[in-house]
Amino acid sequence: MTWSLDPYRCFSAQPAQRELASELHAGVKSLSLVCPHSHVDPEFLLSAARFASPTELLVQPDHYILRMLYSQGVPLEALGLPTQDGLPYEQDGRKVWQRFCERFHLFAGTPTGLWLKEELVGVFGVDKKPDSANAQALYDHLEARLGQPEYSPRALFQRFNIEVLCTTDDATDSLETHRRLQQEGLPIRPTFRPDKLLSLHNPEWPHQLARLSQVSGIPVVDFRSFLSALAQRRQHFQQRGATATDHGALHPHIERLSATELEALFAKGLGGQAEATDTARFTAHMLLEFAHMSAEDGLVMQLHIGSARNHNPALLRRFGYDIGADIPVWADWTRGLKPLLDELGNHPKLRLLLFTLDESTYSRELAPLAGHYPVLRLGPPWWFFDSVKGMERYLDRVVETAGFYNLAGFNDDTRAFASIPARHEVWRRVSCNWLAAQVGQGLMDLEEAQEAAQQLAYGLVKSAYRLGEPAVVSTAGGAR
Amino acid sequence: MTWSLDPYRCFSAQPAQRELASELHAGVKSLSLVCPHSHVDPEFLLSAARFASPTELLVQPDHYILRMLYSQGVPLEALGLPTQDGLPYEQDGRKVWQRFCERFHLFAGTPTGLWLKEELVGVFGVDKKPDSANAQALYDHLEARLGQPEYSPRALFQRFNIEVLCTTDDATDSLETHRRLQQEGLPIRPTFRPDKLLSLHNPEWPHQLARLSQVSGIPVVDFRSFLSALAQRRQHFQQRGATATDHGALHPHIERLSATELEALFAKGLGGQAEATDTARFTAHMLLEFAHMSAEDGLVMQLHIGSARNHNPALLRRFGYDIGADIPVWADWTRGLKPLLDELGNHPKLRLLLFTLDESTYSRELAPLAGHYPVLRLGPPWWFFDSVKGMERYLDRVVETAGFYNLAGFNDDTRAFASIPARHEVWRRVSCNWLAAQVGQGLMDLEEAQEAAQQLAYGLVKSAYRLGEPAVVSTAGGAR
Amino acid sequence: MTWSLDPYRCFSAQPAQRELASELHAGVKSLSLVCPHSHVDPEFLLSAARFASPTELLVQPDHYILRMLYSQGVPLEALGLPTQDGLPYEQDGRKVWQRFCERFHLFAGTPTGLWLKEELVGVFGVDKKPDSANAQALYDHLEARLGQPEYSPRALFQRFNIEVLCTTDDATDSLETHRRLQQEGLPIRPTFRPDKLLSLHNPEWPHQLARLSQVSGIPVVDFRSFLSALAQRRQHFQQRGATATDHGALHPHIERLSATELEALFAKGLGGQAEATDTARFTAHMLLEFAHMSAEDGLVMQLHIGSARNHNPALLRRFGYDIGADIPVWADWTRGLKPLLDELGNHPKLRLLLFTLDESTYSRELAPLAGHYPVLRLGPPWWFFDSVKGMERYLDRVVETAGFYNLAGFNDDTRAFASIPARHEVWRRVSCNWLAAQVGQGLMDLEEAQEAAQQLAYGLVKSAYRLGEPAVVSTAGGAR
Repeated sequence: MTWSLDPYRCFSAQPAQRELASELHAGVKSLSLVCPHSHVDPEFLLSAARFASPTELLVQPDHYILRMLYSQGVPLEALGLPTQDGLPYEQDGRKVWQRFCERFHLFAGTPTGLWLKEELVGVFGVDKKPDSANAQALYDHLEARLGQPEYSPRALFQRFNIEVLCTTDDATDSLETHRRLQQEGLPIRPTFRPDKLLSLHNPEWPHQLARLSQVSGIPVVDFRSFLSALAQRRQHFQQRGATATDHGALHPHIERLSATELEALFAKGLGGQAEATDTARFTAHMLLEFAHMSAEDGLVMQLHIGSARNHNPALLRRFGYDIGADIPVWADWTRGLKPLLDELGNHPKLRLLLFTLDESTYSRELAPLAGHYPVLRLGPPWWFFDSVKGMERYLDRVVETAGFYNLAGFNDDTRAFASIPARHEVWRRVSCNWLAAQVGQGLMDLEEAQEAAQQLAYGLVKSAYRLGEPAVVSTAGGAR
Repeated sequence: MTWSLDPYRCFSAQPAQRELASELHAGVKSLSLVCPHSHVDPEFLLSAARFASPTELLVQPDHYILRMLYSQGVPLEALGLPTQDGLPYEQDGRKVWQRFCERFHLFAGTPTGLWLKEELVGVFGVDKKPDSANAQALYDHLEARLGQPEYSPRALFQRFNIEVLCTTDDATDSLETHRRLQQEGLPIRPTFRPDKLLSLHNPEWPHQLARLSQVSGIPVVDFRSFLSALAQRRQHFQQRGATATDHGALHPHIERLSATELEALFAKGLGGQAEATDTARFTAHMLLEFAHMSAEDGLVMQLHIGSARNHNPALLRRFGYDIGADIPVWADWTRGLKPLLDELGNHPKLRLLLFTLDESTYSRELAPLAGHYPVLRLGPPWWFFDSVKGMERYLDRVVETAGFYNLAGFNDDTRAFASIPARHEVWRRVSCNWLAAQVGQGLMDLEEAQEAAQQLAYGLVKSAYRLGEPAVVSTAGGAR
Repeated sequence: MTWSLDPYRCFSAQPAQRELASELHAGVKSLSLVCPHSHVDPEFLLSAARFASPTELLVQPDHYILRMLYSQGVPLEALGLPTQDGLPYEQDGRKVWQRFCERFHLFAGTPTGLWLKEELVGVFGVDKKPDSANAQALYDHLEARLGQPEYSPRALFQRFNIEVLCTTDDATDSLETHRRLQQEGLPIRPTFRPDKLLSLHNPEWPHQLARLSQVSGIPVVDFRSFLSALAQRRQHFQQRGATATDHGALHPHIERLSATELEALFAKGLGGQAEATDTARFTAHMLLEFAHMSAEDGLVMQLHIGSARNHNPALLRRFGYDIGADIPVWADWTRGLKPLLDELGNHPKLRLLLFTLDESTYSRELAPLAGHYPVLRLGPPWWFFDSVKGMERYLDRVVETAGFYNLAGFNDDTRAFASIPARHEVWRRVSCNWLAAQVGQGLMDLEEAQEAAQQLAYGLVKSAYRLGEPAVVSTAGGAR
């Protein structure tokens, strides 16, 4: 059986809805991709870079794939993930690829399966579904393609029609790669992510601070100088084209601490005495602090809430971070975010984008919040919900209360470069199908649906992330 | 493009389901409207009353409209809302109307957009979608209509085919307007809402008590006399035709307090020393007290849970209550309600209607509770969920466990008089479409669906609110 | 109107989807039933047993029926439930049947209504919907059938095509009935359910312990001997064919206690001093203990979380357990289960099946957990969610993240023997319809859908419960 892309994929089988969805999709499918939140490593876009192998491109960086295979009994070392404890791990990319293809049926019904098909068929011209028998031939096919210049990262970047790509970068990053790429004309922007600098109880924290002092040129010796150095870094990021910051926390808990308490917490961290609860308190305050900085310098603030990171301690010890062992928890946005909104909810310059892993808060809390506070916009369905049904639930639950214009469009949030167009394509198709159902049910007219399709595919994300605006120059700098 | 009402609106585009939905709808669309829970001001129904202007009728009393416009950067003062801090606010209704029409696209995909279309097209004969260009002509059109006798409140009341309208009234209301309207033959009933009398920590509380003493003729000096005065008021409401009470709380937390503690709390309130936590404790007890009163006098008890009122303190200070800054929080009904159900869950006379803003409790808690306890009925989807998809989720989640007969039909819960038929129409259409899907999927037969459509549109609400029964005469009075 | 089974029931009315669903269903409808979790009493399968009456077979053991009738004002004593407080109760099964049939309309739109129709029409050849007028004739019809040999329990067991039936049994059960049934060739297996042995504060607990000592031959005098006796029982259950254990708790709270604390708790229970909080702490530890036992002996561990049992104390006093007054509460699986997963989440032999009554955890917690940890599988939608829409929500929310192969297929979880095929039939139809929609929307191909239909109907449950594997022989015994 030939493996090919159904032109009506993600659309309803009901003929009238299918036709209308196709029509709406035809109006947006050629729009360029705006990628405001990505986790790809900018290094790979340097002109000489090549993808190393099918396994390194498609399997190993994708924690959706890793977690599914692991859940079905494949050890991560058998997938070639480097161990940190000396346990031998698979060195042969072809063997990893074989293990992956033998279990390709595990991805039936999952977004990973959908993306992989879009990539393999649409980008790499594969025409057979991976399985045990064809795995090596498929590897040969892909390896050959990756050796061709039109499959270089830079060539794919162009072919993918990416208008802008924002990476996610440590606050202490020099952004030297970004400078080089920009000089070469690539539309790459960094995003300011300071999470590691908040982790008071992490043994690595003093090193993070030392690095912060070094790159900022401001000796960080206390909380006050810490803030100054952060402000310097934000300015540096803005000069390199950043329009946004990114922040993660387990809970949307925000709390203003006194200057005294802050200095005491900071000193405790410096002395190596801080515990996880200190980090949590410090984070609760710092989110407020960063919101004030954003209100001053205009960097859009992204807040990603609800992931219990590294839930599996045995894997954390053996393989480190980001191997798929993150599990969501519930959130209380209404009360958690209130201290921030009390201070800044009506601010004319602040923009705060919210991302949740607790879908029960879409209609209960997030849509009502975004449908009221002018500083808020809702980020797209995130992580486990970046899927056909996840997107449908999101649209079902937020649009009625928040409308379209309090949404932030789509972002792909991926480390798997080759999956970028697949993810945008799924979003565009699902949202066009959803809008077609709205029209079919007489809830929106065709003109409204066409406008909404454009906004969801392109307009909202550009405006939410201030990517269509001229670069904002901070007027306040670090002078708070 | 002519703006008109799709005869199949809210129905599926799938032909068979659409036809069946139409057929079911044809059987209920002429049933009169039973409105057991409304927030319209009864004054406007006095015979000489007229609507002041399109802006005052359609925009300013509708917090759904206010919140959406505010979320997109329109200050409430620019919408003509009177400020309480001396800030100037827009006096020109035409300018407010212009701002509203310029942003009409914000309501695409929202229930507000759906209701406004039903009102403008269906009630006022508008045939163009509001926009920047036609806003003033539209204002002229509406203003002219409102000047005609057939658009007087009384005339619309008749045209809307309202069988009964229950307002929501402070426990201290004299109900004089209701008496006059009833004398003129209007089917208006009050609803007993004592929430303000529970707010021990509100600086206004002593004034509320003074008013209670005055209208009841019972000097309220302690908790015991407070209860007596409340019982007197309930009797007065029943004599004016009330069949229900209404109560709101952040959490469904119920707890019996000792007489000593109650008198102490009450004295603390009288002395101006009470705090918000005292009000919360007092409320937790009083909900139980009111349930016992309802078990005696037969007034149906409505409980609305889960709204964090006035979440935006800056707007509260400037504009006061009810301008759209209320945000839901999660609820724990199963444990919160247990003390009340332990005492009264099997009572033959009590009826308790539950309303939630936490949809996750529909299937997890509310349907199982209502599907077991004889005193319980579930209120319809409330507030943010009074929408097409909100109603679909509600029916999807409650009917399988609670059936139809543990539901309380529909209520419009609105302060926007002109939107009353629109809201009932959406409910009737959505429920008929939902039932058509049940039949199409072979889960109900046509006869069952016809019966359920009648019940959802008309029968359940009358029986749940005891509106079909002869007035209940309290046998116990205030003698507890 | 003739009452008959729609051949397309549970399938979409959309023609293409309906055809495809039918085709998928044709491929699984003849597969035998695997029933790994049942609450039927094995006694009734002894060769001479007969069903007593229609009322005793269909109405009285079904708490779904009891709770609906009770919620609409029918006292349980009027349904013939034996009272424990001397209140007279209905002795005439025909009168109970009449009351049930008069209220048959209450079950419209509920899974109970669907199952009853499948049973009455499909198993007993009824062709009229029950109502007040035909109730007695219907009773006559059913009574006559139950007197025929082909409607004996044993005959129905064969007709239902049950491949294996696992009952749920107290840990202290001798399993003598199972032995006899097995000798007669019936595929009956017990399941080890030790919950009653954990209820330290229950006045019955000492009697439970005495019984445990007696059947195990190990005098239980302290926590250490308690563990030994439990291990002995597990071995006995395995020898009788058990492949699984079953555990219920209000919360998924797990916590390792010290040996000292455990002995102290145990002694407190022995001394009759334990309270409910002691039982909760003890349970939190024992779930961990049982997981370790399962990791050793290979019994699949089922964990059912979130039911507040016996929510209605008045009914508990009068009628005892299991009369429908159990109400769900929310759950926090991610953090609650972590201590167990920290110790055993990557264990090669442990298998842990999770069941929830909090649907908000399907996508937020359970699918991410099962999609990562190799020891986990997700049980099917449970209890109130064992319904058409409950199943659809389950598949919608878990498959995208966990895939199909981390699911545990279906189980009927019923005390109502005659409803077993009806429940499996609903699951098979709903899952085939869901898969047909996946194919129609271009998200899965036909081959994948056919494979998934087989797995959901038959394959997954056999493998999840290790029913396809040769009996596991414990290698560790009670020697921990």
